[in-house]
Amino acid sequence: AIDSTIPLKSRSLWNKHQVKKFNNAEAFQSRFIDHVETTLARSLYNCDNLAAYEAASMSVRDNLIIDWNKTQQKFTTRDPKRVYYLSLEFLMGRALDNALINMKIDDNSVSTDDKKSTGPKEKSINSREVISGALDELGFKLEDVLEQEPDAGLGNGGLGRLAACFVDSMATENIPAWGYGLRYQYGIFAQKIIDGYQVETPDYWLNFGNAWEIERNEVQIPITFYGYVERNGTDKKSTLTPSQWIGGERVIAVAYDFPVPGYKTTNVNNLRLWQARPTTEFDFAKFNSGDYQNSVEQQQRAESITAVLYPNDNFEQGKELRLKQQYFWCSASLHDIVRRFKKSKRPWSEFPDEVAIQLNDTHPTLAIVELQRILVDLEKLDWHKAWEIVVATFAYTNHTVMQEALEKWPVGLFGHLLPRHLEIIYDINWFFLQDVAKKFPKDVDLLSRISIIEENGPERQIRMAFLAIVGSHKVNGVAELHSELIKKTIFQDFVKFFGASKFTNVTNGITPRRWLRQANPKLAELIAQTLKDPNYDYLLDMPKLTLLNKFADDKKFHAKWNEVKIHNKLRLADLIKKLNDGVDIIDRKNIATTLFDVQVKRIHEYKRQQLNIFGVIYRYLAMKTMLQNGSTIEEVAKAFPRKVSIFGGKSAPGYYMAKLIIKLINAVGDVINNDVAIGDLLKVVFIADYNVSKAEIIIPASDLSEHISTAGTEASGTSNMKFAMNGGLIIGTVDGANVEITREIGEDNIFLFGNLSENVEDLRYNHQYNPQELPENLDKVLEYVENGDFSDNPSEFKPIVDAVKQHGDYYLVSDDFDSYVATQELVDQVFHNDKDEWIKKSILSVANIGFFSSDRCIQEYAETIWNVEPVEQ
Amino acid sequence: AIDSTIPLKSRSLWNKHQVKKFNNAEAFQSRFIDHVETTLARSLYNCDNLAAYEAASMSVRDNLIIDWNKTQQKFTTRDPKRVYYLSLEFLMGRALDNALINMKIDDNSVSTDDKKSTGPKEKSINSREVISGALDELGFKLEDVLEQEPDAGLGNGGLGRLAACFVDSMATENIPAWGYGLRYQYGIFAQKIIDGYQVETPDYWLNFGNAWEIERNEVQIPITFYGYVERNGTDKKSTLTPSQWIGGERVIAVAYDFPVPGYKTTNVNNLRLWQARPTTEFDFAKFNSGDYQNSVEQQQRAESITAVLYPNDNFEQGKELRLKQQYFWCSASLHDIVRRFKKSKRPWSEFPDEVAIQLNDTHPTLAIVELQRILVDLEKLDWHKAWEIVVATFAYTNHTVMQEALEKWPVGLFGHLLPRHLEIIYDINWFFLQDVAKKFPKDVDLLSRISIIEENGPERQIRMAFLAIVGSHKVNGVAELHSELIKKTIFQDFVKFFGASKFTNVTNGITPRRWLRQANPKLAELIAQTLKDPNYDYLLDMPKLTLLNKFADDKKFHAKWNEVKIHNKLRLADLIKKLNDGVDIIDRKNIATTLFDVQVKRIHEYKRQQLNIFGVIYRYLAMKTMLQNGSTIEEVAKAFPRKVSIFGGKSAPGYYMAKLIIKLINAVGDVINNDVAIGDLLKVVFIADYNVSKAEIIIPASDLSEHISTAGTEASGTSNMKFAMNGGLIIGTVDGANVEITREIGEDNIFLFGNLSENVEDLRYNHQYNPQELPENLDKVLEYVENGDFSDNPSEFKPIVDAVKQHGDYYLVSDDFDSYVATQELVDQVFHNDKDEWIKKSILSVANIGFFSSDRCIQEYAETIWNVEPVEQ
Repeated sequence: AIDSTIPLKSRSLWNKHQVKKFNNAEAFQSRFIDHVETTLARSLYNCDNLAAYEAASMSVRDNLIIDWNKTQQKFTTRDPKRVYYLSLEFLMGRALDNALINMKIDDNSVSTDDKKSTGPKEKSINSREVISGALDELGFKLEDVLEQEPDAGLGNGGLGRLAACFVDSMATENIPAWGYGLRYQYGIFAQKIIDGYQVETPDYWLNFGNAWEIERNEVQIPITFYGYVERNGTDKKSTLTPSQWIGGERVIAVAYDFPVPGYKTTNVNNLRLWQARPTTEFDFAKFNSGDYQNSVEQQQRAESITAVLYPNDNFEQGKELRLKQQYFWCSASLHDIVRRFKKSKRPWSEFPDEVAIQLNDTHPTLAIVELQRILVDLEKLDWHKAWEIVVATFAYTNHTVMQEALEKWPVGLFGHLLPRHLEIIYDINWFFLQDVAKKFPKDVDLLSRISIIEENGPERQIRMAFLAIVGSHKVNGVAELHSELIKKTIFQDFVKFFGASKFTNVTNGITPRRWLRQANPKLAELIAQTLKDPNYDYLLDMPKLTLLNKFADDKKFHAKWNEVKIHNKLRLADLIKKLNDGVDIIDRKNIATTLFDVQVKRIHEYKRQQLNIFGVIYRYLAMKTMLQNGSTIEEVAKAFPRKVSIFGGKSAPGYYMAKLIIKLINAVGDVINNDVAIGDLLKVVFIADYNVSKAEIIIPASDLSEHISTAGTEASGTSNMKFAMNGGLIIGTVDGANVEITREIGEDNIFLFGNLSENVEDLRYNHQYNPQELPENLDKVLEYVENGDFSDNPSEFKPIVDAVKQHGDYYLVSDDFDSYVATQELVDQVFHNDKDEWIKKSILSVANIGFFSSDRCIQEYAETIWNVEPVEQ
Repeated sequence: AIDSTIPLKSRSLWNKHQVKKFNNAEAFQSRFIDHVETTLARSLYNCDNLAAYEAASMSVRDNLIIDWNKTQQKFTTRDPKRVYYLSLEFLMGRALDNALINMKIDDNSVSTDDKKSTGPKEKSINSREVISGALDELGFKLEDVLEQEPDAGLGNGGLGRLAACFVDSMATENIPAWGYGLRYQYGIFAQKIIDGYQVETPDYWLNFGNAWEIERNEVQIPITFYGYVERNGTDKKSTLTPSQWIGGERVIAVAYDFPVPGYKTTNVNNLRLWQARPTTEFDFAKFNSGDYQNSVEQQQRAESITAVLYPNDNFEQGKELRLKQQYFWCSASLHDIVRRFKKSKRPWSEFPDEVAIQLNDTHPTLAIVELQRILVDLEKLDWHKAWEIVVATFAYTNHTVMQEALEKWPVGLFGHLLPRHLEIIYDINWFFLQDVAKKFPKDVDLLSRISIIEENGPERQIRMAFLAIVGSHKVNGVAELHSELIKKTIFQDFVKFFGASKFTNVTNGITPRRWLRQANPKLAELIAQTLKDPNYDYLLDMPKLTLLNKFADDKKFHAKWNEVKIHNKLRLADLIKKLNDGVDIIDRKNIATTLFDVQVKRIHEYKRQQLNIFGVIYRYLAMKTMLQNGSTIEEVAKAFPRKVSIFGGKSAPGYYMAKLIIKLINAVGDVINNDVAIGDLLKVVFIADYNVSKAEIIIPASDLSEHISTAGTEASGTSNMKFAMNGGLIIGTVDGANVEITREIGEDNIFLFGNLSENVEDLRYNHQYNPQELPENLDKVLEYVENGDFSDNPSEFKPIVDAVKQHGDYYLVSDDFDSYVATQELVDQVFHNDKDEWIKKSILSVANIGFFSSDRCIQEYAETIWNVEPVEQ
C-alpha cells in the first residue's frame, strides 16, 4: 500500500501519468468514446441517446473529479474550518446540464487550423457550447441527451430544494463544505393522475445506474440499533460517565459521493449520501438459529433503511423506520466528521473551531446527541466539557411555525431503538431545566412548557425542536417574518431564557445558475447582453441586476423581454401537450395574450390550492352567467380575458384532503376545458408529477404565480423567488418571503391581498365561536362544488366544502376570498389592458431580485453562524 | 441516435478516437492511474491494495472489453451457429489472475531506450509479467493485489465449477458461445467453524463492487408470474392454439455481462447473468390499494428472486422461490436468444441451425417449455412444427444417477406460478405418451413409469429430468461409467423408446489454465521448460504432456519435481497457519516426509468423508495401542509414518448428517492434534470455507487425494482430475471419472479399492435383510466414536454410528472399510519407503492426464451434440 512514505520512483510515475481534464471538443470526444467502448461496452453501432447521456456524464464527471480531488487535497493541506450541512433531503434534479454550466475548463489547446500559440495563454471557455458542438459532431443533440437523465428526486419540496441550492452556492463561494444525506433507492414517488386522482408509483431513479456518484466502498461505517447500556469498571457508575452501548442490530453505512461543482471556480465540493448495507461481520446470535435462509433475509432487510424517502412535507408521527433512517444518517455522518477531525491531531476543545454543523430542520437533531455520546462514551471527555463543544458546533434552522408540524418521538419507541441516546437526552434536559429553574425559580409552568420531554398526553414525547435549540448556539428562521414569528410563538420561552441573540434570521435564496441560466437560457442571455456581461459574471453577483432598472421603460427592451416570455410559454405548451398524450390544450396563436397563472408546489391546505381553484370556479360561473344573461363571447372575453390556470404538485400519500383537492382541480378542468361555450377563454391544467426538471420549464413560462398561503403559515417559500427571477409577477399573501420580495422589488410590482398574520388568531377564534356569514361569491362557488357537475358522486367534494363551512375554516379561505378575487381582476386589468405596465413590473421584479441569490444566504450563514471563510483557489 | 445510417463525419470521428488496448507496462500504468483518479476518485495518497486491485481489474477489463466488442461484432457479421450454455451455477472464483494468464496482448510498442523499430513487428507478450512489473513500479505487489479479490462463489460445487471451466474452454476454442446464469447478490454461504460446527454466514461478494461486470441497463426483459390463461378470438380454442397468459406479477430481468477471455486468442466470450429488479411500469391493481409504503416494499421484494444461491448440492423439494428463480432465468435467457435470432431475419425452421442450447442438469428444463410457448403463443407457429424446433435445439446433460436427486415439482405449486407452462407440459406429455403407446401398445406400466407427470404419491409431480429428455435431441452423462449406468437405471425406459443413440457420453474436463498454470505456476513452468515450450502452448494441447513420460525415471527431473511439490506444501502450510490464527499445525522441517492426504469437496454421505475419518481414527487407535503395548515412538513412526489428513468442504445447511460429519472431523482433530504422545506423526486439519481460491492452493500441495464415493454414486467428479494434473496421487473407488483416469494414467499409478458399482444393489439388499457382522477394525472405531473422547455429549455422534450399524449402511462403509485401510497402508509404504516410485507415479499421472482438459470436452460437445464450429480470428 502507498502511504506518506511513497518511493520517489513511484511518485514520479504517478505524476507523469496524472489524468488531465479535457479542455476542448476533441479531448471530450476521445473521453466520451472511451467510455462508450469500455465502461459501457458499446460501440458506434449501438450507442443510443441513453448511452450517449451516460458516456457524456461520465466524461464530465471525470473532469469534476479531478477538481474534486484537488479541492479535497487543498482542504487537507490548509485545514480550514469546515461546514457540514445535514439535510434529510437534497432535491437535486438533473446534474449534467448543471455541470456543463458550472464546470470551469481552460482552453489551452491549439486549434489545428491555427498556428502554434505562443505560450500557454489560457482562456476560460463555455463548456456547455463546447460539449454541445462535440456531441453534434458525434451525431447527438445535447437537448436529447440531457432529456435522458432521471431527476434525483431525493426530497419532497422546498426544504430539499433549499439544500440543493445551498450546496451549489457553498461550492461557488469556495466554502469548505460537505453535504450529508441519504441515498434513497427510491426517491419521492412518481405521481400519476388516474381519473383525476393522484396515484403514487415508486420512483426507480437508479434503475439505469447513476453516472454522477462515486461508490465509496472503502468508507463503511457500522451503525448500531437496539440493545442495552452497560456500565462496568468505573467507580462512579452514572449515566454521565462513559457507558457502553451493546447494540442488538448492526448495519453498515456506505458512502456515495456526488461532486458539486461551483460556478466559475475549480472548487468542487462533496455531497455524501449514505446507503445501508447488511454487515459482513459475524453475528453469532443471529446465525445460531441455524436457519440460513432466514438469516440472509434478515440481513437483506438492512437495506430497507435507505430504501424509501418518506413522502411527507410535515412530520408524521411514529414510524420506527423513519427514526432509524435519521439515526443511521446522523451517526454515519458524525463518525465521518469526527474521523476527519481526529486526523488533524488537535485537542477536542478546538473541535468547534474546525467544525460547523448546520441542521436543516429537526430531522438531524440526533446528531447533537450522537456527538455528545461519542465525546463522553468513546472519547471519555467530561460530560460538561463535551456539552460545551457540542453546543458550539451545532446550529439549527427552523422551517415551520405550525405547532402541529414540530417533530416529536414517543419515549418508548425511542428508548427501545436508542437506549443510550435516551439517557443522554434525559441528562441534557436535566441540566437544562436546572438552569431554567435557577433563572426563573418560581415558574413551574415554564419548566413543563420548555422541557425537552413533553409529559402531558398519553405517552411522553421527545420534542426534537426543543432539543435542537438547547443543543445549538444559533437558531435561525428562513425569512424575516418567520424568524420574528417563531420568537413570539413556538419558541417564546426559549427567547425568554436564552435571550433574543441566540435567534437570528437568514432569508432563503435560490441559485441563479439553475433557476435563471439553466431554466431560462433566453432570459439569461438577454440579461448578459444588456449588462454587457458576455461571460455571465452577474450570476455570481446578482445585485448587479439592478442595472436593468434603467431599461424598465425602454420599449425596444420590452419587445425583447416579451419575446423571451412567449418563447418560454410555447416551451411549456409543448410540455403540456406531451403530458396530455399529444393533445394541445393551449391556444398557441393567442399565447401572447393568454395569462399563464401558475401554482406549483406541494398540495397542502395551508398553501391554499383550494382558494385558487375556488377562484377559477368563480370566474367560470361568472362567465357562464354572462352568457346565460345574453352577453356575447366577446363581451365575456372583455370581462374575463384569456387565461390558463396551471397547477402542479404532489400530495403526501396519506393526506386525504390534499388528494381531494387534486381531484377537484382535475374535475374542474374536465368541465371547463370541455365547455365549448366559453371557447379558449379559460383552461385548467394539472401537470402530473411536478419535479425539478418540470419546474425548470414551468417557472420561466409563468405570467403570474400564486403564493397564497394563509398568512403566518409559510416559513419562506422559495418558488416565489424563482418566479420573480424569471420575470413572472406574483399574487400573494403577506407571508413568508413575499414580504421581503415586496420590499426589494417594490409594492407596485406585486399583487398582495388578504389578511395579515397578526389577525389570524382572532379570525380563527371568531370562526369557532361566531360562525360567520360566507361572502356571497364564495357561497355560490361552494354550492356549485357540492352540487355541480364535478363529480358523479354528489358527496365527493363535501369535505372540501365542509372545511370552510362546518369546521371553522382554519385556513381562512372565506376571509380572503373576496380580496383574492378582486386582486385577480386587477391582474387581468393590467395584463390585458396595460401590457407595458405589466412588462415594466416584470423587468423591475428581475432587476431587484438579486438579494435572493443563495450566494447571499451562504455568505450570511458563513459570517453570522458558521464563522468560516472561503478558501480561495 | 446513431444507427446504420451513420454520417460519414461521425463515423470517421469515432474511428479516430477508437480506444486502443494497452500493450505495455507504461500504457497499463496510465490506464491504471486514470481509473484510480477518476473512476475511484482516489489519488496517489490514498490508493491502498483494494483500490489497486479495482483499478488494475478495470484496466484489464477495458482491454478485454475491446476484444469482447470485436468478438461480438465478428459474430454479428459472420452469423455462425451459437451455443448457449444454461447453468444455474457458475463457480468462477477470481477473475484478475485468470485474465492476466489468458489475455492476449501484442507488444508493438517501442521502448524509449531503443531505436525506432522498423515496421509493426508484433510479438505476443506475457501480460501477467508486464502487469506485475508495472504494479511494482507503482508500489504494489501483484500477489497482494490479487488477494483483494473476493471469489465469485456462484455455485455449490462440481456442477458450477464445470460450467466455469466450460466457458473458459469455449472462449479458448473460439466457439461462439454465451453462458447464461443468475447474478446472485449472495453467493454460496461462507462457512465458519465454531466449536467444530459449521455455521453459515452470508457471502456478500458484491459488497465492494465488482470490477468485472458490465451492467447492461439497456437490456431489461420483463418476466411474468402467476395469473391465468386466456384464449379468445380463435375459432378452435385449445391449449394447442395461441393463448394469452395474463400475468399477475411482473419483474424485470437486467443483464450483467462478464467477459470471458480465451487463452492465447483475442476471442472474448460472454457470460450473461440476470438480476431481478422491480418493474417501472405501472400496475394499477397494485397501487390501487393506496398504501404507497406497502406497494414499494412489495415491489422491492422483486429483487429477492436473485438474492440467494440455493445452497444444495442435490435437489431439495418444494421451494417456490427456487422455481421462480429457474423460470426467471430461463425466460430472460430465451427471450434474449430469440431476439438475437430474429435479427437475422431467417425463417423459424432455421432456428436449430443457428442456436444450440445446452441444459446443465435439469435446472433449466423450463427453457424447453418457454421456447415452445414463445413459438406457439407469441410467434403463432403450429404446435408440432414448434416442437420439432425445440427438440432440435436443446440438449441435456445429466449429473446424477441417484433417483432421489432428480428434480420434481408439485403440479399445484407449478400451475399456480406458471399456468400456461403447465398446460404446455401436459400437451407435451400427451403427445409423448401417445407415441410411446403406439410403439408399446400393451405396456400400461411403461406409460406410468415414463410419464413426465408422476401420478403416484400424495400429489402429482412434474419429473423435470423426463421433460428434459423428451425435449432434447441428445442426453449425455459426464463420465463413461455414469453414462452407461443411467442408460441401465433411471433412464432405461427412455433408451427402450428413443433408442440408445439419443444417449451419449462426454467425460468432464477441467481447464488447465486455472488448474495448472494459475494454481501451480511452479509446476507449469517446470513442464514448460521440460517440454521446451517457453510460451506455454501445451496448455492448449494437453495430450502433449505425454512427452513427460520419458522423464519418469530421470532422477534429476525427480528432484525438480519434488522441489515443486515441497514448495506447494509449504504454501498450503502457510494458508493453514493463517486460517488457524497464526498457529502452525504442520511440522515444516519434516514437510517433505509428511504425507498430505486431502479430501476436499462438498460434505455428503455418498462422498464418504465418514469413511476417511474412520480411517484416521483407526490409525490413531492403532498408534495408541502400540504405545500402550510398549512400542517406542520410533517404532510407531515406522508403522504409521508422518501424515496430515486435510479435509475441506461445505455441507448443505439443512443436511444434518453432513454437518455432524464436519463436527466429528473437527472433534477428532482436537483430540489427535493435542495428543502429545504421538507427536507430529498424525494431524487432522479441517480447512474452513473451502472455495475455488483455496482449492488453487490446496490441490497443488496434495500428495494423496481421496475420491472414495460409494461406487455408482459420483457421476464424474472433477477434483480427481485437478489433483492428478497437479501430480497428486489418488486413492479412490471404481466410480465416476476415476475409471477413465485409471485407464489414462495406468492402474499402477492410482490406488483403487472397494466394491464395484455392479455389486452395490446386492450389498444394500443384504444389509437390509441379513444384518451382517461389522469388520473388527471398523467395529472398534465405531465403538470409540460412540464412547470416546470426541464429545462431552455421549450420544452426539450416535447417528453416524447408527447409519452404519442400524440403518442398513446405505453407503457401504462397512463393506469397503478393510479394503480402504489396507490400501492406505500400501500408500504409506510407497510414499515413505519408495519415494522414487511415488514420484514416478506422480509424473506419469501428469503426463497422461491430457485427456481431461475441458478443451477436449468442448470439442466433443461441439462435434457430437451442438454441431458448431470455431470461428477463427
